Amino acid sequence: MAFANDKLEDSTRPARPQDAGNPVVVEVTRGNMVESAHRAAFAVTDTAGKVVLHAGEIERPVYARSAIKPIQALALVESGAAEAFELGDAEIALACASHGGEPRHVETVERWLARIDCSVDDLECGPQLPSNESAMIELIAGGREPSALHNNCSGKHSGFLTFARHMGHPTAGYIKFEHPVQQSVLGILESMTGCDLGNAPRGIDGCGIPTIGIPLGNMALAMARLADPSDQPDRRQAAAQRIRRAMAAEPFMVAGNGRFCTQAMELTGEKAQIKTGAEGVYCAALPELGLGVALKVDDGAGRAAESLMAQLLVRLGVLSQSQAESLIPPILNRAGRHVGALRAASDSAF
Amino acid sequence: MAFANDKLEDSTRPARPQDAGNPVVVEVTRGNMVESAHRAAFAVTDTAGKVVLHAGEIERPVYARSAIKPIQALALVESGAAEAFELGDAEIALACASHGGEPRHVETVERWLARIDCSVDDLECGPQLPSNESAMIELIAGGREPSALHNNCSGKHSGFLTFARHMGHPTAGYIKFEHPVQQSVLGILESMTGCDLGNAPRGIDGCGIPTIGIPLGNMALAMARLADPSDQPDRRQAAAQRIRRAMAAEPFMVAGNGRFCTQAMELTGEKAQIKTGAEGVYCAALPELGLGVALKVDDGAGRAAESLMAQLLVRLGVLSQSQAESLIPPILNRAGRHVGALRAASDSAF
Repeated sequence: MAFANDKLEDSTRPARPQDAGNPVVVEVTRGNMVESAHRAAFAVTDTAGKVVLHAGEIERPVYARSAIKPIQALALVESGAAEAFELGDAEIALACASHGGEPRHVETVERWLARIDCSVDDLECGPQLPSNESAMIELIAGGREPSALHNNCSGKHSGFLTFARHMGHPTAGYIKFEHPVQQSVLGILESMTGCDLGNAPRGIDGCGIPTIGIPLGNMALAMARLADPSDQPDRRQAAAQRIRRAMAAEPFMVAGNGRFCTQAMELTGEKAQIKTGAEGVYCAALPELGLGVALKVDDGAGRAAESLMAQLLVRLGVLSQSQAESLIPPILNRAGRHVGALRAASDSAF
Repeated sequence: MAFANDKLEDSTRPARPQDAGNPVVVEVTRGNMVESAHRAAFAVTDTAGKVVLHAGEIERPVYARSAIKPIQALALVESGAAEAFELGDAEIALACASHGGEPRHVETVERWLARIDCSVDDLECGPQLPSNESAMIELIAGGREPSALHNNCSGKHSGFLTFARHMGHPTAGYIKFEHPVQQSVLGILESMTGCDLGNAPRGIDGCGIPTIGIPLGNMALAMARLADPSDQPDRRQAAAQRIRRAMAAEPFMVAGNGRFCTQAMELTGEKAQIKTGAEGVYCAALPELGLGVALKVDDGAGRAAESLMAQLLVRLGVLSQSQAESLIPPILNRAGRHVGALRAASDSAF
């Protein structure tokens, strides 16, 4: 009884998480009971695409959403655009960011746009209240409305505009699938994931750009190649290193205060570049290990994706157990009382 | 590798959703692919506890959270407290509410507390920003801080305070398990669910009161008895009818603008009393049918719980297909574009 009036392109019956029966990886406890539970799949691969660790279905296409921003940012850097406009670590990290809309994020984007002879009016991501609560309160209390600058993808979009300026493309419509900016990014995605994405499932991301269905195994491969680009062409090697360095130098810019990506990278330093995506996706590049990680929580929950990424970082030796525990706070109620917790599923073993 | 530092009471290994393999009931599409999916269990029973419709595991304990507020409110009404303090439909509906903290909610709670010689200082639920975005913005823009009045459970808590005043109990500590208020509510729960809850799993709810693990089948039975209390003692019959009438008369008070419970009850009128609970729980009482409904989404997602409740209300003839579709809006991105949808899982049949 499909009743949602979804005017979508028709397709053959897509595979669903149900078919795969992905394992429960995260449990949410309250008192002395498991209250909720989350299933997920993940893949860890090396630069040859060999799967060194996995769970669940890793060949089914998954929308990476923002988790592949570091891959998408290769266009900005390897084209020479970043250098031409003298972008620093802050801007390159913002190009990879789903930021919290805090003042430093917003001001850096605004200055960046001016430097490339653009403004907030050129951004096509749409306005969004800052996801950081303090920043949101500060904005509203000051009587201001959010703009596209506050949109968590405004750094990535500023990267697209910079690329367009450098390549001499029109900036208008840069979010569209057919626009040379998105076509370039798609080409890089195909190259890094080792996937022919021409017939891949496709949707529209929250910020308006295309999102492409990529199997987790291939997503992990792309991250492995970002981690260890020694098999890649020289320009891409340099670009990958530049992106990794920027994320490691400016973890705040990649997300913000209180955010998992930021806090995790503050702990790992250069050993891991970690990026969240909507609907329960997480990716990581682990340069010293030459590995890439990609995970997707079936139901899309961010809390479970964070918990699972923390588990994997411990398993792969990038974080200690206590460091991981510090990243996943206990569940507090409105009066600040500890009432529950997120934990690895009690019989999961990987 | 359980790493979350959860200082919880020990227990025997609890049953987990994984063991039961609840079916996928809701799919989230984006473009031409299913992006995420949610599993759930549900039970629909009559007043004898006979299961007329179900899916998944309905005997495992589930924290009902706020979904049983209409049952908890029986204490307020059948004790005579509501009548003694001349509470109207608005207050009784608020006693059943997870409200959005909108001005009418907050002002009604404030006046109610004054009438029982209490104030915001007597509320023990803790402060909370209004969940309704407009109300939240209005509050912050006005330079004000949220108080316990804005807490979505403040109506329920005002009901507890009213009961305490009427029964001559001390009000302090009314949220505690051992307090006579909670013990009375627990007794009513046992009676309505047909469960011995003495050894049931127990946790602390977001607002500080106990939350008890109840099987979905028994939760549905309690809602069926609310729907058709003809087998119940006279005082309870009258109280159940009073509560149902209040929810039907004041659906805005039960939740608020833009909320599923409110919009659904505006469509069903007296034919359904519908209540959401955190972590993907929903309950409904269907008076004309003498049925109760209880559902729990494995992963706790509210969007899936709403979608499933809408599906069930259609299946049970309480809503039309198009009414249900009006309750589950399409997924829009930041620029307001239609990018996806929530739908019944394509092979679910119940």
